[in-house]
Amino acid sequence: MPDQNGGSASAGSWLFGAVFGRGSSSGTPVADDGAWLRSMLAVEAALARAVERAGLAPRGAGAAVTTAAAADFGPSELAELGRAAALTGNPVPGLARVLARRVSEPAARAAVHAGATSQDIMDTAAMLLARDALGAAITDLTAAAGAAARLAGTHRRTLMIGRTLLQQAVPVTFGLVAAGWLSGLDSAVEWLAFVRDTRLAVQFGGAAGTLASLGADGVRVRALLAEELGLADAALPWHTERLRVIDIAAVSARACATLSKIARDVTLLAQTEVGEVKGNPVAAVAILGCTRQAPGLLATLVACAEQENQRAAGAWHAEWQPYSHLLELAVSAAAWSRDLLAALDVDTARMAANLAEAGGLPLAEGITALLRAPLGAAHAHDLVTNAAAKSATSGVPFLDALLATPEIENTLTRAGISHARVEAALDPAGYLGSAEAFITAALDAHERLVPG
Amino acid sequence: MPDQNGGSASAGSWLFGAVFGRGSSSGTPVADDGAWLRSMLAVEAALARAVERAGLAPRGAGAAVTTAAAADFGPSELAELGRAAALTGNPVPGLARVLARRVSEPAARAAVHAGATSQDIMDTAAMLLARDALGAAITDLTAAAGAAARLAGTHRRTLMIGRTLLQQAVPVTFGLVAAGWLSGLDSAVEWLAFVRDTRLAVQFGGAAGTLASLGADGVRVRALLAEELGLADAALPWHTERLRVIDIAAVSARACATLSKIARDVTLLAQTEVGEVKGNPVAAVAILGCTRQAPGLLATLVACAEQENQRAAGAWHAEWQPYSHLLELAVSAAAWSRDLLAALDVDTARMAANLAEAGGLPLAEGITALLRAPLGAAHAHDLVTNAAAKSATSGVPFLDALLATPEIENTLTRAGISHARVEAALDPAGYLGSAEAFITAALDAHERLVPG
Amino acid sequence: MPDQNGGSASAGSWLFGAVFGRGSSSGTPVADDGAWLRSMLAVEAALARAVERAGLAPRGAGAAVTTAAAADFGPSELAELGRAAALTGNPVPGLARVLARRVSEPAARAAVHAGATSQDIMDTAAMLLARDALGAAITDLTAAAGAAARLAGTHRRTLMIGRTLLQQAVPVTFGLVAAGWLSGLDSAVEWLAFVRDTRLAVQFGGAAGTLASLGADGVRVRALLAEELGLADAALPWHTERLRVIDIAAVSARACATLSKIARDVTLLAQTEVGEVKGNPVAAVAILGCTRQAPGLLATLVACAEQENQRAAGAWHAEWQPYSHLLELAVSAAAWSRDLLAALDVDTARMAANLAEAGGLPLAEGITALLRAPLGAAHAHDLVTNAAAKSATSGVPFLDALLATPEIENTLTRAGISHARVEAALDPAGYLGSAEAFITAALDAHERLVPG
Amino acid sequence: MPDQNGGSASAGSWLFGAVFGRGSSSGTPVADDGAWLRSMLAVEAALARAVERAGLAPRGAGAAVTTAAAADFGPSELAELGRAAALTGNPVPGLARVLARRVSEPAARAAVHAGATSQDIMDTAAMLLARDALGAAITDLTAAAGAAARLAGTHRRTLMIGRTLLQQAVPVTFGLVAAGWLSGLDSAVEWLAFVRDTRLAVQFGGAAGTLASLGADGVRVRALLAEELGLADAALPWHTERLRVIDIAAVSARACATLSKIARDVTLLAQTEVGEVKGNPVAAVAILGCTRQAPGLLATLVACAEQENQRAAGAWHAEWQPYSHLLELAVSAAAWSRDLLAALDVDTARMAANLAEAGGLPLAEGITALLRAPLGAAHAHDLVTNAAAKSATSGVPFLDALLATPEIENTLTRAGISHARVEAALDPAGYLGSAEAFITAALDAHERLVPG
Repeated sequence: MPDQNGGSASAGSWLFGAVFGRGSSSGTPVADDGAWLRSMLAVEAALARAVERAGLAPRGAGAAVTTAAAADFGPSELAELGRAAALTGNPVPGLARVLARRVSEPAARAAVHAGATSQDIMDTAAMLLARDALGAAITDLTAAAGAAARLAGTHRRTLMIGRTLLQQAVPVTFGLVAAGWLSGLDSAVEWLAFVRDTRLAVQFGGAAGTLASLGADGVRVRALLAEELGLADAALPWHTERLRVIDIAAVSARACATLSKIARDVTLLAQTEVGEVKGNPVAAVAILGCTRQAPGLLATLVACAEQENQRAAGAWHAEWQPYSHLLELAVSAAAWSRDLLAALDVDTARMAANLAEAGGLPLAEGITALLRAPLGAAHAHDLVTNAAAKSATSGVPFLDALLATPEIENTLTRAGISHARVEAALDPAGYLGSAEAFITAALDAHERLVPG
Repeated sequence: MPDQNGGSASAGSWLFGAVFGRGSSSGTPVADDGAWLRSMLAVEAALARAVERAGLAPRGAGAAVTTAAAADFGPSELAELGRAAALTGNPVPGLARVLARRVSEPAARAAVHAGATSQDIMDTAAMLLARDALGAAITDLTAAAGAAARLAGTHRRTLMIGRTLLQQAVPVTFGLVAAGWLSGLDSAVEWLAFVRDTRLAVQFGGAAGTLASLGADGVRVRALLAEELGLADAALPWHTERLRVIDIAAVSARACATLSKIARDVTLLAQTEVGEVKGNPVAAVAILGCTRQAPGLLATLVACAEQENQRAAGAWHAEWQPYSHLLELAVSAAAWSRDLLAALDVDTARMAANLAEAGGLPLAEGITALLRAPLGAAHAHDLVTNAAAKSATSGVPFLDALLATPEIENTLTRAGISHARVEAALDPAGYLGSAEAFITAALDAHERLVPG
Repeated sequence: MPDQNGGSASAGSWLFGAVFGRGSSSGTPVADDGAWLRSMLAVEAALARAVERAGLAPRGAGAAVTTAAAADFGPSELAELGRAAALTGNPVPGLARVLARRVSEPAARAAVHAGATSQDIMDTAAMLLARDALGAAITDLTAAAGAAARLAGTHRRTLMIGRTLLQQAVPVTFGLVAAGWLSGLDSAVEWLAFVRDTRLAVQFGGAAGTLASLGADGVRVRALLAEELGLADAALPWHTERLRVIDIAAVSARACATLSKIARDVTLLAQTEVGEVKGNPVAAVAILGCTRQAPGLLATLVACAEQENQRAAGAWHAEWQPYSHLLELAVSAAAWSRDLLAALDVDTARMAANLAEAGGLPLAEGITALLRAPLGAAHAHDLVTNAAAKSATSGVPFLDALLATPEIENTLTRAGISHARVEAALDPAGYLGSAEAFITAALDAHERLVPG
Repeated sequence: MPDQNGGSASAGSWLFGAVFGRGSSSGTPVADDGAWLRSMLAVEAALARAVERAGLAPRGAGAAVTTAAAADFGPSELAELGRAAALTGNPVPGLARVLARRVSEPAARAAVHAGATSQDIMDTAAMLLARDALGAAITDLTAAAGAAARLAGTHRRTLMIGRTLLQQAVPVTFGLVAAGWLSGLDSAVEWLAFVRDTRLAVQFGGAAGTLASLGADGVRVRALLAEELGLADAALPWHTERLRVIDIAAVSARACATLSKIARDVTLLAQTEVGEVKGNPVAAVAILGCTRQAPGLLATLVACAEQENQRAAGAWHAEWQPYSHLLELAVSAAAWSRDLLAALDVDTARMAANLAEAGGLPLAEGITALLRAPLGAAHAHDLVTNAAAKSATSGVPFLDALLATPEIENTLTRAGISHARVEAALDPAGYLGSAEAFITAALDAHERLVPG
């Protein structure tokens, strides 16, 4: 269907689409005009087939409508759809009319849009878009998680300085950092898959949610429609119960949230003055460009759940754009994250150098621990902090500054703590606590999620 | 602990608290100053007990700290906490200092805050708050769902006019409306319980997420801490992986979203001119007052997930208030919804009167269906619409207007459709499609969720 | 430049564009791909002319670049721009390269993008978009305000029932309702114009905001660039000081906020059961569909102001889409509001009927006022409320119910209040307080703003 | 009135209040329970005085109510207010009742709440809160701007490396950075003052905005009420026209936006690895903790503008908390910013060292400019980039790497560009473009705003 979107896919992608509208791995945009058109037509075609299977339309009606739905829409038809949308407030009535016009046989024509209201078509099409978008995001995030797992495994013991409130703190390993990313990515994938697998369902209720125009056949037609589309059936029409929309939006925004942390870390570690990682210079920035748009869009969709009676006057309409856009952003950010992590270059020498430059100060906490028993926590903390400050301003190595503090020296002697033990306590590799256990735990959890 | 919050609970509740800070069924506020204080102290006490059980503190240290944590905080200590918080940027260091001061035995004192960083205490306390808050919301929403189920069952066949875009449309039943509410409430409960049961976990990582100051004992202490608090252990510290916070926020906002639809419906149905339901005049308004605040708070929390390195400079801090407030709103809205639905008064006579006043016009869709086969959909639609318009302006009953249209009359004759059948088609009770099946489905699903 | 946007305008408008992307009165979309492309080219062309005027490029360079910028971009060039944007993270470098390629004379070619960084071009283009969009919104909102003024004038004394919390309250006039709308519309126009006239300014700072590559000529070139574009000069580059963006966004969202109130009122007054106004059934819904998207977009733009150092890593990029979309929504909502108010049909008979049906109850407050002096406020309130309740349930007219209450009857007698005076107090036309003064005030203020 | 808030101020401030609820310079919280109570009482007292002055209440009624309003509320009265608020959905009816009870003289008692509806009291009280809060924010932001101006002046020529996308770019001065901050702070102050001075106005409309219960006296009482409170009179009641609320919220969020940029810069420049500034380690983090909450709150308030008819069912109620909280955050962030900037320690040596370490690479743009004419922009760019890369990897000084490139060397010779000129082009002090002019412009603008 090359012309289906009237050229908007290519035109759309030249501007912001290249950054924010990266599609599935096949390159197809997930929620642009073309994707919506294809999805709405797919729903109308499936409905005609369902109606035929239910015995409510003549044999061949489903195939006739399916054929009509497969034909391209040219510019004049798209313009007609636009005019109709302005008159009716949504794009479906115009679409149904054009589609019906393409079906020559009157009896088959009656199968077009049978029993449906506009919202049935758009809501169900939105589920098809979500299936594709969540799938695309899962694929790329799984690849990104694989890359994070490799980084975590490779850098199990790659020492680096930890940073809290953007200040150097105690040592960590880059493997632990990557394990944290991995944990977030795995959780993002799990919830995206959970929502895709349990929350996508056909919407079919007719004018006010009773399917009255189908008489006693409504539930059966709905089940067949669900079957045709490979979507779950829904016990109830959900035209004004919008939790499915919210769930799709929330896991999309949640995936973005995970990626925002990773991208932020990468931009900080890649700073010229830090230089601990290098990578695609655009990817991390593009991810943040995507993820920062997500919270506001999610908020809009949650607010839109306040829908009146049997069809909302505005709240439903206000969903279309933030829903489409949030799906696009999640898919784009996921694609960028795969690029980012797969090619992330870790500069272990720089990590070691940054850590060495800190001159033992990051281990002050460990030294304090050594002195806590003999001196009490508060006093130990004060003495060590003073020695650290002296070392930082004078350039004297931290060990020397410690030993040059008489009270510390005396305490060590009294407590039988050898200088060698103090020196050992100043080895960052010895002050990693459970870091490696945490890495193993993250890798084990990933292996359970993505065996292989 | 009557004085724990320095009076803030009572003072807090007199203003907006009465509407927006309704607490659990026991009346305890879920996330005000007092609840935070109690929770942080509970975490510190549990940590001391865990450290003792791990053999890292002398026997009795846990009990000593637990006793110290149970004593009230008077105004001067609260003021000291406030001053300390302004100096350190969070309330924990001051709290740990006051707590340590209360423990006379130096060896036991060393068990206070052992191995922990401020964020460990606050994040874990936040999980305790969530456990209480989600529990309270689940209780009240389950009661609200029970009320909705009763309404759905009682009003299975209570006819009313459906309304789309705030205009009268085809008939529905009030049972179907209530079934829609029920479906949303059940889903709200399910997800709240899912998050409470699977996503609450202890946070324990020390200064930079390695638990270095506990040497090789970190993971064991964490497991014991989790056990003491009845929280799940977490494979990894999640200090900068904020999906747990987002999940708690999202299900809270999701519950609010469900309630916003119900409260909106009630305000609309209770309008003087509609008059189909009556109820607590404050409850629906209070719910909307709560639910409209939720989307913005959720957005803030999702945006805060972009946390730097091993501790965020601001993004973590920015979580505290929206997190607390969103929990309070969800609990309040749930409490109001229980009040609202348990006492909702349905005026079936008014429903019948409003439907009768519509004079058959809501059935135009059904009449069109009758004429679609002989006349074609478009032509049938036009003729019926004209007759409906004539009826509406002239006051002539719709049936008469239809039969007074020669082409309709002739078509009926030709097609062998009796006047009786047309008259039957104008009976709203006969144009309800699958409404009852939908009600049954919603009640069955509810029965599976809440057997009884 | 018919092909400039590669067909995206027409394709874009067929789907959601018809509702949410209504452009200026000339029909041109205000912030789609084509508008951005035209604006960025306009900035590049103006920069080349400015550079020439500053003596930094040979004569004719400005004209050559302007000509190059006027030529259409075909599909292959747009695709090239898309690919370049994905590589560099923004669309400008590719655009500058294609533009330079079109300038055959090397010396003139050097004038392309001289001294500028990508952000200079996009930020300044964003100002041009804002000028058009705010202008379009002002035009349509001024027309809408005119319509509201006519309604306020015409219906100065058109009585209707006021409604608080969706319940009937005391009488108002439709003129007063329209005056409230007018007041909001006038304020929307005023602030839009204020921002358009005072806050749009050229952004020009070069790589890091110093204009270093232009040596001492930077400020002069900037002034000429501003002159060429008809924008204000800015004392300082504002590449990381985003208050201009926020101000544009805030007045756009503010205009949407005004319209949301109006559209909400119309949907409520147009309810079948109320029926006091009629109008374009799509317009009010479309307005709400627009306005409900505005808050989330505004929030994103405000959050994006946290921009790092001399160029933000993501926060700037995250602005592009919400900025464009918010402008589009404000313009669309304004266009719909003009349609809505210009053709709003007021059913004064229905207003009178709804008021009459309330049977005097809305005047209970006035009757209470009459009895307050002799009986005390609380007692008067209780007696009148009882009589009102009796009237409502029994169908007895309110006046009769009042006079049938012995204590009221006696009090009236004692206080010398005649039945005629009570009857007069039950005339809603006499219980309008300052309504007419308020209408006059609103009309006077409007006349000052839009003389004529 | 020490007890007015039942202790909530002190209790409230110990937890998050110390960071997020810093009050005005006098230390008074700007929008907590106590501030609301005081403000609502002030409005009720002013109304009684206005009513007396209008001749609608006996002499002394105003004074009697004012005295009653000045007496403390004890715990039992606050609890009564809370219960009443839960019954009526807002705190005013209970407050008016307690207040009336305190007035012994029946005729004076009738002046309590005369003509008013609950919303009149709360909306007008909200204006009083805004006056205090905006004033406090203006004071602290003006001080912060003063500090920024001093930094800009002092560091006019303090060289540092500019950073774009968190990567080192071309040189700037710290004075220019501070001038950018100054410009934002001045704009924040200007708009806060503009809104405070032009948009705060009394709200007074009675039950449905007509002031009907005051007969013909409504407008006069309102004018007197405005006079009593020192607020502007409003042409029209604005109970459902919420632009004033939005404007207050928008300038508050706007001030936060300005501060977010400054705080983010400080955290980045203060990083251990950058070390160019030092300061209060809590202040910048606390600012970001405040500012990140602002966008979501603003969004909620904008969304709440969709208010129904003559009083909103929920949207008005949903404003109270975000409005209060946003004011508190703006005031707190402003207070922190004053602390931050007044004591900011600039490490010029570290700035110089960081710049020197970049080894001339930041001047590549300048060298390219030198070669652009003889070589063409693209070719010059490529050659210089290669030399820069060679210098970066090999450690060879950039100048040497340039001159060791034969084509560059030859071009320089041919074009008569001396090595001295190349060397000069590698002096960052010579590559500052208009930086100083921009600083002067910012300081001049500040001087105009805050002469002295």
